[in-house]
Amino acid sequence: MTHEPLTVDADRFAADLAQLCEIGWEGERGLHRTAFSQPHLQAREWFLRRASAAGLETRVDGAGNHSALLPSGEPEARTLLLGSHLDSVPAGGRLDGALGVLGALEVVRTVKDAGLRLPVTLEAIDFTDEEGTVLGTMGSRALAGQLTPEMLASPRYGRDRLLAALAGAGLSEESLFAARRDPADIAGFLELHIEQGPVLEQAGVQLGIVTGIRGNASFDIEFVGAARHAGTTPMAARRDAGLGAASLILGLRELVMRDFPGCVANVGDLRLEPGAFNVVPERAVLKLECRSLDEDELRELAEAVLALAGREAERWGLELRTEAVGLWKPAPTHPRAREAIAHAARRLRLTATEMPSGAGHDAQVMARITTSGMVFVPSVDGISHHPHEWTSLPDCINGTNVLLGAAVELATTS
Amino acid sequence: MTHEPLTVDADRFAADLAQLCEIGWEGERGLHRTAFSQPHLQAREWFLRRASAAGLETRVDGAGNHSALLPSGEPEARTLLLGSHLDSVPAGGRLDGALGVLGALEVVRTVKDAGLRLPVTLEAIDFTDEEGTVLGTMGSRALAGQLTPEMLASPRYGRDRLLAALAGAGLSEESLFAARRDPADIAGFLELHIEQGPVLEQAGVQLGIVTGIRGNASFDIEFVGAARHAGTTPMAARRDAGLGAASLILGLRELVMRDFPGCVANVGDLRLEPGAFNVVPERAVLKLECRSLDEDELRELAEAVLALAGREAERWGLELRTEAVGLWKPAPTHPRAREAIAHAARRLRLTATEMPSGAGHDAQVMARITTSGMVFVPSVDGISHHPHEWTSLPDCINGTNVLLGAAVELATTS
Repeated sequence: MTHEPLTVDADRFAADLAQLCEIGWEGERGLHRTAFSQPHLQAREWFLRRASAAGLETRVDGAGNHSALLPSGEPEARTLLLGSHLDSVPAGGRLDGALGVLGALEVVRTVKDAGLRLPVTLEAIDFTDEEGTVLGTMGSRALAGQLTPEMLASPRYGRDRLLAALAGAGLSEESLFAARRDPADIAGFLELHIEQGPVLEQAGVQLGIVTGIRGNASFDIEFVGAARHAGTTPMAARRDAGLGAASLILGLRELVMRDFPGCVANVGDLRLEPGAFNVVPERAVLKLECRSLDEDELRELAEAVLALAGREAERWGLELRTEAVGLWKPAPTHPRAREAIAHAARRLRLTATEMPSGAGHDAQVMARITTSGMVFVPSVDGISHHPHEWTSLPDCINGTNVLLGAAVELATTS
Repeated sequence: MTHEPLTVDADRFAADLAQLCEIGWEGERGLHRTAFSQPHLQAREWFLRRASAAGLETRVDGAGNHSALLPSGEPEARTLLLGSHLDSVPAGGRLDGALGVLGALEVVRTVKDAGLRLPVTLEAIDFTDEEGTVLGTMGSRALAGQLTPEMLASPRYGRDRLLAALAGAGLSEESLFAARRDPADIAGFLELHIEQGPVLEQAGVQLGIVTGIRGNASFDIEFVGAARHAGTTPMAARRDAGLGAASLILGLRELVMRDFPGCVANVGDLRLEPGAFNVVPERAVLKLECRSLDEDELRELAEAVLALAGREAERWGLELRTEAVGLWKPAPTHPRAREAIAHAARRLRLTATEMPSGAGHDAQVMARITTSGMVFVPSVDGISHHPHEWTSLPDCINGTNVLLGAAVELATTS
């Protein structure tokens, strides 16, 4: 290795990024590239064409995952996967997922062009349906053997949509299961991604080394009081469900900031019933989620949140109903992957900080079966899942160079 | 006057109350006797039949108001009105309005049976559409000359419904205006009504002497923050519109109880947008109303509420939008009417307390043109506008006896 580390072709990367960002882009209406939509299929074809043009092998598996491969010269070599996803949320931004796929392609191209001989096969992969307009992390789950018949029986938007999406893409439930790969054949997984939050930008740091993907516990919560005439019922004689909800919203913030400083929580939805100017609310129905990087801490946080809701219900004379609606365990990244990323950043003289990922990613799935890591680049104003989502081109190039450096280190030390 | 005060025929009253309560009653589905519905028209016919059977004159005016009259023997006598309304809200209770109409009929019958010669004509009146499924206090406004062309141009449920309702009942906009009476011809107005709140029951007091009908100022309020990914955005970096709404709900209660002890306020509706588990709320949209018996106090309260909303918006880094959507001025009752009610209660050895009315009533309209008063009887559990709305029979009879005593005093002293 020379004193100056290998870097990617910034001009080629920038030109390709500009092209990719156009596919499904509707200006202020955002990026419309949901899984299996025409713009999504178009982006995937574009990806394979760019891979072929670079002299790479291409492959589409039974889950629809699209790959560009640089085979190792060594026999029985394992595969180091690099990638993310080309699908978007509806009215989303241009870099969530796409940056990680293009960055992976650029890394594989660069290694090929440099004539580097690695002991692993390098594979840039575009996973199917990460965002979940059909099932959610469908492609990475299939590859990692993490799909179950139960998941396919009741996908979040219904089974009809799932079956229609699979059939339209020439896939099937059988082919999804057939896409599973043996973890023994995989050397690791690295994902470059935009942060989707304001931490890096506010700290003035160029890169995030993801320590893990936060687990997520979500609840439907309902406070029940008594509907009364708001003109005739004195303040002290009310059982106002809105007071329970309001106290929980404020108390939740205080609880997390004071007792769970590394965590986040959110009341994202709330409605009052019956919902009239002159009726004291009988019901307050909330959607609440909390997240932590640590499984024990997530459990403690969820317990503390429910205890808080119980205390507020008692304080205001309300009944409380809670229902757990989702639980995702935290997925720590691998120390060797984090070290490889840190080394690469240092060699490139880029500033980097360790941080958790609050959002879910394909890396969350892959971390269950192989040595996995994630690189974050700063999101302008912390915006994501929105037409204004963006990251500066220099930051995108920095992230791709770090992905390259980390991939080479992991490839040669795994 | 004898030492024992004149009282109504409790058995006749109870039998009629039982009959009236059946008209439009659908059990647990509540009372369905909205203005101009078949059950409403049936109840009004029943009222006229019961009046005729008692030897009273009957009358229906151009606003559809139904009356039972006991003419004074004196020439040019003014008219003392007693009454309320027979229409209900959808799925309402059996006594809101109906008690006041039947109580008025029973008072007039009792005066007639006792051969009392009063210097005024007594008129038991059933006002049209108090509850507002068409316009709101339509009959009392027409009689009091408080209807305007503007009100008829944009009624709350639309002009088509208003015109259809009038035509179906053989009325018209012209006849509504023709129903106006000269205030000089009116000696006063008394209304017996259920409290619709818990104050009398909780205090163990038999009667409420209404000091006035609270005015009402209502607002649409919107806090605007920034929608962000709830997994990736640290708590301290959020502009969460839900925090503004929650702080306003809690602060409103504290403000009213501390600085405006005679008033009430309510956040009856709230929604968060976009409304997902994993998105920090960008918008919180509230419906807020506040009420006071005093016009200056109502203005001060409304100003304090908006100032509170402004402080909370600033505290949480949110934009604030407020819009005044309604203003009803307070309507104090007349001291002579209050005294007449207090004297009647004392003669009957019933406990009574002065209190405001939080809800609107026909008396609110009548108070603008004549000496007006209201008597409240206790609501079981404070429930109203609900199938469980009820008042014990002894309390209903007490209220009717007080209405009788107050009417006789007002008739002879006006």
